[in-house]
Amino acid sequence: MRIKTKNKTINNNPIGIFDSGFGGLTVMSAINEALPLENLIYFGDTAHVPYGSKSKSIVIRYSEEITSFLVKCKVKLIVVACNTASAFALPILKRTLKIPIIGVIKPGSKAAVFASKNKKIGVIGTEGTIDSRSYLQEINKICRCKVYQQACPLLVPLIEEGWDDDEVTDSIVKKYIKPLLDKQIDTLVLGCTHYPLLKKALQKNLGEKIILIDSANATTYEVRDILNNKCLFADPRSKKFLKFYVSDNPDKFKMIGSRFFSKKIFDVKKIKMTC
Amino acid sequence: MRIKTKNKTINNNPIGIFDSGFGGLTVMSAINEALPLENLIYFGDTAHVPYGSKSKSIVIRYSEEITSFLVKCKVKLIVVACNTASAFALPILKRTLKIPIIGVIKPGSKAAVFASKNKKIGVIGTEGTIDSRSYLQEINKICRCKVYQQACPLLVPLIEEGWDDDEVTDSIVKKYIKPLLDKQIDTLVLGCTHYPLLKKALQKNLGEKIILIDSANATTYEVRDILNNKCLFADPRSKKFLKFYVSDNPDKFKMIGSRFFSKKIFDVKKIKMTC
Repeated sequence: MRIKTKNKTINNNPIGIFDSGFGGLTVMSAINEALPLENLIYFGDTAHVPYGSKSKSIVIRYSEEITSFLVKCKVKLIVVACNTASAFALPILKRTLKIPIIGVIKPGSKAAVFASKNKKIGVIGTEGTIDSRSYLQEINKICRCKVYQQACPLLVPLIEEGWDDDEVTDSIVKKYIKPLLDKQIDTLVLGCTHYPLLKKALQKNLGEKIILIDSANATTYEVRDILNNKCLFADPRSKKFLKFYVSDNPDKFKMIGSRFFSKKIFDVKKIKMTC
Repeated sequence: MRIKTKNKTINNNPIGIFDSGFGGLTVMSAINEALPLENLIYFGDTAHVPYGSKSKSIVIRYSEEITSFLVKCKVKLIVVACNTASAFALPILKRTLKIPIIGVIKPGSKAAVFASKNKKIGVIGTEGTIDSRSYLQEINKICRCKVYQQACPLLVPLIEEGWDDDEVTDSIVKKYIKPLLDKQIDTLVLGCTHYPLLKKALQKNLGEKIILIDSANATTYEVRDILNNKCLFADPRSKKFLKFYVSDNPDKFKMIGSRFFSKKIFDVKKIKMTC
């Protein structure tokens, strides 16, 4: 619902955010904190999680169905809060959608270029994100940098097992980041929305000098810019809502999701997907 | 095709085997070795992998669609080569199918009871298999035993990462099996068809005295019994075939699947699932 008040346009329609599972909740949490008046709808595709090990064509199919659902919910803006879906599906989704849609890769890349002094940037992510070379391309569109990539397929299951603060996690993190440290990176992009939960273990093993880029904050800045430029901010007097939808296992989502959202999640609805 | 020759009936139709991904190939490999004349069709549901962390209702939906596909391929027998699907979907599938169908849980349970002397049996598996308590119930149908269960969500991704023989794997295995060793089990059921690839690491950390039950062999005995009792053996003079189907990423399946099948996989076809 768009209302014109004097010189200002307000729009109380929600922002739609989606991911294959829980990870995107770290992005939703950042948006919720920075833009506390906005209504937010989250969709976690828990029937098909994880996207990171699946093919480009199938991630596009899943993403198209989710965006259709969000459009039916009358969202005013969509955030693809999943790196694999941002890499594979965002260019396709942009072509057909009439509302603004953004991913996490471009904002994360911008923030990394801005932070790096020696222009040696590391990127960690799922197999899908790394194989797509999206960060590499996006970073080099902004500025000529050396980008070193590392797929880390074990980090998501480790986080979901709740072992973020365990010596096993330390050993796995060490093993994955060693080739990046050997290249003397000064900035590391967390190219998966699950990874903010591993910040402590990563920083401990990288040392304090290496800057971690969590795309959740960078994406939130971009969301704010779009709302501002297109006059889409919500009315501060209206009642705010947060809604959560999944394609499988709403009870598990409620339980595990709260760790990612940093707040208790109360109500989760299950939606049957056709693909 | 069923042909009566003198006193013997032969049936050259294939045996259908399915799993959420690669794990069931360990079962297919055992069947292929023990019954080298049989034609085999494998379906890996790589569009929805893993099943272990998903809900009962969705695993049933996926399993129903796969069995329909296998029935269309005119299979004479179906093997649910996935513990989670055996736990969740097998009872439902049995009700509607006109051909014999077996899972891996009953054969694995029988083998465990047969092997255990002190009747203290450990079971490791995915969250879905463990939460279903299927091994516990199946073992106790045969004989009163103490059954100790442990969900090990990290083992499948570790195996798929190819870290079967790594010190990180050793630490994770140690952590998972400690509570079972504390209960003085003498037999451990590998309640996931991926786990045979971890036999070395498991045996090393369990000690030589504890017996590992790999349901692939136990399931193969049951397949042979059914073919024998129902006169369904293939004609030894006919040309044998092995076929592989997946719902996503056939190239990745060819590459990773060969480790599970212990033989090179050449041709993999992709089938679009409707659910």
